Amino acid sequence: MTTREESIDGPDVGELTPPNRTLMGPGPSDVHPRVLRAMSTPLVGHLDPSFVEIMDEVQELLRYTFRTDNRWTIPVSGTGSAAMEAAIGNVVEPGDTMLVPTNGYFGGRMASMARRAGGEVVEVDAPWGEPLAVDDVADALAEYDPDVFGFVHAETSTGVRQPEVPALTAAAHDHDALVIADAVTSIGGVELRVDEWGVDVAYAGPQKCLSCPPGASPLTLSDEAMDKVLARAKEPRSWYLDLGLLEGYWGDERAYHHTAPITNVYAIREALRLVAEEGIEERWARHERLAGALKAGVEAMGLEMNAADEYWLPSLNAVRVPEGIDDGEVCSTLLERYDLEIASGLGDLDGEIFRIGCMGHSARPENVIYAVTALGDVLEQLGADVDPGAGVTATRRALS
Amino acid sequence: MTTREESIDGPDVGELTPPNRTLMGPGPSDVHPRVLRAMSTPLVGHLDPSFVEIMDEVQELLRYTFRTDNRWTIPVSGTGSAAMEAAIGNVVEPGDTMLVPTNGYFGGRMASMARRAGGEVVEVDAPWGEPLAVDDVADALAEYDPDVFGFVHAETSTGVRQPEVPALTAAAHDHDALVIADAVTSIGGVELRVDEWGVDVAYAGPQKCLSCPPGASPLTLSDEAMDKVLARAKEPRSWYLDLGLLEGYWGDERAYHHTAPITNVYAIREALRLVAEEGIEERWARHERLAGALKAGVEAMGLEMNAADEYWLPSLNAVRVPEGIDDGEVCSTLLERYDLEIASGLGDLDGEIFRIGCMGHSARPENVIYAVTALGDVLEQLGADVDPGAGVTATRRALS
Repeated sequence: MTTREESIDGPDVGELTPPNRTLMGPGPSDVHPRVLRAMSTPLVGHLDPSFVEIMDEVQELLRYTFRTDNRWTIPVSGTGSAAMEAAIGNVVEPGDTMLVPTNGYFGGRMASMARRAGGEVVEVDAPWGEPLAVDDVADALAEYDPDVFGFVHAETSTGVRQPEVPALTAAAHDHDALVIADAVTSIGGVELRVDEWGVDVAYAGPQKCLSCPPGASPLTLSDEAMDKVLARAKEPRSWYLDLGLLEGYWGDERAYHHTAPITNVYAIREALRLVAEEGIEERWARHERLAGALKAGVEAMGLEMNAADEYWLPSLNAVRVPEGIDDGEVCSTLLERYDLEIASGLGDLDGEIFRIGCMGHSARPENVIYAVTALGDVLEQLGADVDPGAGVTATRRALS
Repeated sequence: MTTREESIDGPDVGELTPPNRTLMGPGPSDVHPRVLRAMSTPLVGHLDPSFVEIMDEVQELLRYTFRTDNRWTIPVSGTGSAAMEAAIGNVVEPGDTMLVPTNGYFGGRMASMARRAGGEVVEVDAPWGEPLAVDDVADALAEYDPDVFGFVHAETSTGVRQPEVPALTAAAHDHDALVIADAVTSIGGVELRVDEWGVDVAYAGPQKCLSCPPGASPLTLSDEAMDKVLARAKEPRSWYLDLGLLEGYWGDERAYHHTAPITNVYAIREALRLVAEEGIEERWARHERLAGALKAGVEAMGLEMNAADEYWLPSLNAVRVPEGIDDGEVCSTLLERYDLEIASGLGDLDGEIFRIGCMGHSARPENVIYAVTALGDVLEQLGADVDPGAGVTATRRALS
């Protein structure tokens, strides 16, 4: 033991007092007060019989939200990227080939994870900001004969919703490829039907349309996909995300694997209860209605959406940055002056788009009206050729 | 869209009402009300300037708690096993040799992670329930010349504290091996001095002596260890836990990697503030005093500790199960009748020990007195040859 003085030198960090933001970026979204309250619930142990019951309930609620009957439906103990790596790292075996898209940031991440899992990566092309064409996917499947095909249902980096999912999965299944869908920004906000659409594996994030703090992330696998995982010749390269081991905890045995993030499980349970109370289809419709009012507002003020209407993604609205305007300055001004978070573009669309989320508890009239008003005012102040009043009027009318 | 009826069929899951447990098992421990309150704080974005400030504060508080000046000190976005895999999966490169111990459950987990990282595993032997002998470690280092040596500072499966850490690290450094320490059950509760003891990499869990809900887990690496990570010929096998990529987010650049578990970062910040307010050494001393009273009680009632006094682990007390008693029945009776969680043994000590935690906010007189009282009463009811009254008296005296 050293002297008393040392401990007196502990860092003097004050009370937690973050600013009170309105979150209209690519996630996290505003969290419902009931979910915040659930997070202050005292903990039970991760092997407590009462927690096992909570796990069952979360699995049932996740199945409802994914629209699946998959037994293999769990919250992964990490943020969305952990669920993504659990999907890819378990399904892709060394020597497997995975077909991934090039039309956004997250296809690139899929490729990196597949390579790290020991897989070969082949690509199906589409520009950033456009969806995949079914024919291009079919051609790539015929050319490369991949074991796994991954696509992004809702591209957070471009605001593109992938249409025609059943045609994509049918094409993949014609070539005996398993389909992994990135549903991070669609789950709970945009129509997603895992079973009906023939998706074999889907992963998601809790902090987008579920409006749940990040930390436990939805994942679902069909029996066929899980059969491939459990029949692997070599164990997956991550112990933490090894679904064969997690089967012992989330399956019938309930054996210790790792300590589940109990509070995050409480949170996602409450967030999913809110989904069930609202009704999943009513929730999809609400996102479309509220984001529609947002879209009407930005278009009426003179801005242009980046995605065509046929593949517009209600939960993430990619809006073109007007000529001569610095997107970073707009975002930081909105944050500083309005406590409002929206985001800039990434990758190929860096500097070209704003990304305005409309997700979960943030998909409310007060948030949408505020976002349209604040964006219009700031753009006008910075000299953009916009009509903020027309924007607010259009939003107001769309909501009434 | 399908019919209205489908959504009505959403699962009917009721309000979250877990039982009110007293947590004296191997973790999670009881969470301080201030930490629970911090978790109900509304979120800011993971790239918000105010969150960057919070990240800095958490790093500073973690350094204080680890007793290190390592720049590379972060909370990993997952539970303790994620921090463990981040350590091993980045430091161990394909072809490296890692020396791991056999004296408990977590040495085995180290071995599994090292193999998955592409490493060769060699072992230094010691029975479950005993610490490593410095001579045995030195012999194994001479025999195998490993690149990395891992040991468990506080074995949660056996209640053993590894003494003589500076001698172990010196031996490893004589053979140019980097040292990884598992500090999951010691951080914030049992003396741990990363820099002074020459530990190169240490990982920990938040839900033990820090009394923070699991979900963001401490990790620290020396510059030398981080140099090895950044100079890897092949990228680590996990994208999610790739410290080279995380460097972009936690380092100077603050670039997006994955969405940090914001609420868990709020929580660990508050839990670490409590450590700094108490003083790290005062906190170690409190754990020793409170666990000492627990130990005095169980010994006075006629039970035997599994670990010798020289390597007793205050945060996790391994108590021998008395002759003829079913440990599982004791644990389930305590849970059902007293709302008190303690745990059974694992692996080689399955059925032989109870594991009674005394960690963080659970290391309080009310918890210790309650645990000794309830354990004595239940054992007596089940026919064990114990003297509960003597146990309570010894605990009471030790606390006064």
